[in-house]
Amino acid sequence: MAQNKPASGENGKLMDKLVSLAKRRGFVFQSSEIYGGLNGCWDYGPLGVEMLNNLKQAWWKSMTFRENVEGVDASILMHPRVWEASGHVENFTDPMVDCRQCKARYRIDVLFEELSLKRKKEVLRELEPERFAGQQKDETIEAEFAARTSTDAEAAALIPLLTCPACGAKGTFTEARKFNLMFKTFVGPVEDSSAVVYLRPETAQGIFVNFLNVQSASRQKLPFGIAQIGKAFRNEINTKNFLFRTREFEQMEMQFFVRPGTDDNWFEYWRAERMQWFKDLGMRAERLQWHQHPKDKLAHYAKDAYDIEYQFPFGWGEIEGVHNRTDFDLSRHEQFSSKGMRYFDEETKEKYVPFVIETSAGASRSFMAFLVDAYHEEEAPTAEGTSELRTVLRLHPKLAPLKVAIFPLVNRDGMPEAAHAIESDLRKYFRVFYDDSGAVGRRYRRQDEAGTPYCVTVDSQTMQDQTVTVRERDSMQQERIPASRLKEYFLERLL
Amino acid sequence: MAQNKPASGENGKLMDKLVSLAKRRGFVFQSSEIYGGLNGCWDYGPLGVEMLNNLKQAWWKSMTFRENVEGVDASILMHPRVWEASGHVENFTDPMVDCRQCKARYRIDVLFEELSLKRKKEVLRELEPERFAGQQKDETIEAEFAARTSTDAEAAALIPLLTCPACGAKGTFTEARKFNLMFKTFVGPVEDSSAVVYLRPETAQGIFVNFLNVQSASRQKLPFGIAQIGKAFRNEINTKNFLFRTREFEQMEMQFFVRPGTDDNWFEYWRAERMQWFKDLGMRAERLQWHQHPKDKLAHYAKDAYDIEYQFPFGWGEIEGVHNRTDFDLSRHEQFSSKGMRYFDEETKEKYVPFVIETSAGASRSFMAFLVDAYHEEEAPTAEGTSELRTVLRLHPKLAPLKVAIFPLVNRDGMPEAAHAIESDLRKYFRVFYDDSGAVGRRYRRQDEAGTPYCVTVDSQTMQDQTVTVRERDSMQQERIPASRLKEYFLERLL
Repeated sequence: MAQNKPASGENGKLMDKLVSLAKRRGFVFQSSEIYGGLNGCWDYGPLGVEMLNNLKQAWWKSMTFRENVEGVDASILMHPRVWEASGHVENFTDPMVDCRQCKARYRIDVLFEELSLKRKKEVLRELEPERFAGQQKDETIEAEFAARTSTDAEAAALIPLLTCPACGAKGTFTEARKFNLMFKTFVGPVEDSSAVVYLRPETAQGIFVNFLNVQSASRQKLPFGIAQIGKAFRNEINTKNFLFRTREFEQMEMQFFVRPGTDDNWFEYWRAERMQWFKDLGMRAERLQWHQHPKDKLAHYAKDAYDIEYQFPFGWGEIEGVHNRTDFDLSRHEQFSSKGMRYFDEETKEKYVPFVIETSAGASRSFMAFLVDAYHEEEAPTAEGTSELRTVLRLHPKLAPLKVAIFPLVNRDGMPEAAHAIESDLRKYFRVFYDDSGAVGRRYRRQDEAGTPYCVTVDSQTMQDQTVTVRERDSMQQERIPASRLKEYFLERLL
Repeated sequence: MAQNKPASGENGKLMDKLVSLAKRRGFVFQSSEIYGGLNGCWDYGPLGVEMLNNLKQAWWKSMTFRENVEGVDASILMHPRVWEASGHVENFTDPMVDCRQCKARYRIDVLFEELSLKRKKEVLRELEPERFAGQQKDETIEAEFAARTSTDAEAAALIPLLTCPACGAKGTFTEARKFNLMFKTFVGPVEDSSAVVYLRPETAQGIFVNFLNVQSASRQKLPFGIAQIGKAFRNEINTKNFLFRTREFEQMEMQFFVRPGTDDNWFEYWRAERMQWFKDLGMRAERLQWHQHPKDKLAHYAKDAYDIEYQFPFGWGEIEGVHNRTDFDLSRHEQFSSKGMRYFDEETKEKYVPFVIETSAGASRSFMAFLVDAYHEEEAPTAEGTSELRTVLRLHPKLAPLKVAIFPLVNRDGMPEAAHAIESDLRKYFRVFYDDSGAVGRRYRRQDEAGTPYCVTVDSQTMQDQTVTVRERDSMQQERIPASRLKEYFLERLL
């Protein structure tokens, strides 16, 4: 990830506006808000759950409406050996320190991150008095400090020089210890180590352990993939940036199993497919970029890895990873379970452990990226000939929570009845919304904020010739069409 | 629940067949099977996840395609005060005993349940030597024992007379203690009581705590409902009957908020709606029944409660509860959070805490009920004029994982190309499956087992007049129609 700092200035304002719109219009609420919230957890409101479902369905169809991709839905609780095999018990950790005086606990990178420039300078000076005795440029200090904290070994030398943010004592930190990010719980009545299970930190392993079951039930031949959407949990110490880093989140993962040697080609194939998916759903190309993981920072299972990054108000952030996981996971499961995970290739008459190309998208993060990308403020003309600020979510019609809003111009003269008739006719096919309160201009603005692509108005002319006006969200163009053609009109544009 | 014992005899065989079909065809796999499984957790395979998604989508539409029901998707981890307010911390418990000698722990009702008739008789005789000295009928013993274990107080007198199944010692059990069924975990790096959060044991509370946020964002007026689909977790000691009693499961819950005094009418309204929903999706009426909770056994929050029960092979079992939860939950949250949970009624100019009618369906249990209900074995004629046993899942087309299968009669003479053309045309609208292997009769049988409503065969006549045969699953009737009409044909029958 290129950068990911709390947004400030104009970008911070944009995040504030988005979070506020999300709450006001029912996209996203703070979890357990009436109890002060639960850090790192969010709830989707009426518009949010529709948009999230639309997003997940679009992904699911793009994956499983193929001949060679099957779906699964594995449980969140899995056998604990799964996470030994995957390497999570050993490696899925953050280094932490405790204050010996007040017992407060910190993630080391957060301690470093929150240090002021002044303190960084003092720390460096204490470490190398001569070199940092005089005046240095701020950038020099920052660069030097970043270099000194980039490896665990170098960071260890700085820890004794830090001050505990809680009690103010200096030099009271313990050495760094590894803190596992998996949530653990106990199955059965006895809370001892033999009863520990974990909330899955990724959905991928639910696919790997089912590889042979799925292959044999579906009679698929390599290459083929297995797709899954589901919740995952990480006990992040440092949650931030709204839906970006949370403790509970949803993933959309697909593992594509291929013959070793063909993995590089499939890696490129899926990179192209996945980037295109975001663009096809309307995400602006200039806000998307690839970030390749440097070879020396690849995860233990990866041969090559690229992130799709979106330019959030707080910086570029990963919304999907495409990874060549090699045969690491299946081989480890074979080793830990003593069950063969090999595939017999009828073409080559060989038996081998397949390589895996993974596409791992965050459903919650993608949701946020689509929301950010859709958010626009613009000057728009009013009915009175003046102009006003219009907030509009330019969501792709497939993602929009409501597809069509229906307004009777006034609440009399047969208009409500005609509008309700249209509503109940369209409701069979689309998620529609009926609104009869306030001026029509205000009703348009409410639907703009919700991202509704079309508004239908029933007026006095409707009562005479059975035509209605259809107004398109982005262009604000209106056209008059027979009410009887509405279904067909929207089927063409929305399905 | 009327009864729920492990199935035996013919019914047991039916369950075995179903579990075996579910695995073989990719409906349901044991979770983490390669590691010996995780008790009480199951994974949905390629056909299972489609059927489960179809089921959830049918429910979601039946709820939220109404003017007065909104959706939400709340997080699984919630603030721990939620479960104090709801009563779960105090009341969501099972009584347990420990063996003082070997430290084994048991749920009391399971200890009693697993006692042989002989042991029951011995226990009763020890308790009242004179009364049980002679010969009694088996039924008398069973009835007497059941009566003696129906309340905690009476059961307490029996516990000292029991033998530990693990070590064989007698009289070594502790007094009963309450064991909470919520899974707990720790948020943040420190595992102490202040960091405890629970995996939600029901989705309902995610709706209650969001009541005012949803109401204000959606501008709904009473009466209106909030619907949610999501996972819930219960640390059951005694999991059983396949998907029926599991530790991880999915719920489809709707809470309908009404003015006090109108609750009885709405209770009846929703009872009727919910029973009809199962019937509309093809569940046999004679296998459905209502079970009213006796007044003295109502949950602490309920004024009235009915279960919809399905007749499983192991007996009648609850698949949905319809409950009048009164103003219990909202009032408790008002009390525990000190946030007003009242609704201002513009009609009556009153401010009050709404009453709640809850419809709480198990997605996993309904899935299993639909699967059981669809399972049929029957004698069917073969192409050779003999007959054979046919296994067919008579799933409602809306629930069926695959909608249409497409077969080229032979793999040459242009038939594969024509069949693939049909496949790619239909795939835009429906989940289709292409199969070119084995005799057509065998391909039909495979689709029957998967519950696919229609099979399309491309044969030599297709090559001449562009017609195909369409075969319907239940009647096995075939009709010949132009390939160009297929899309329209299926849109009529499947949407």
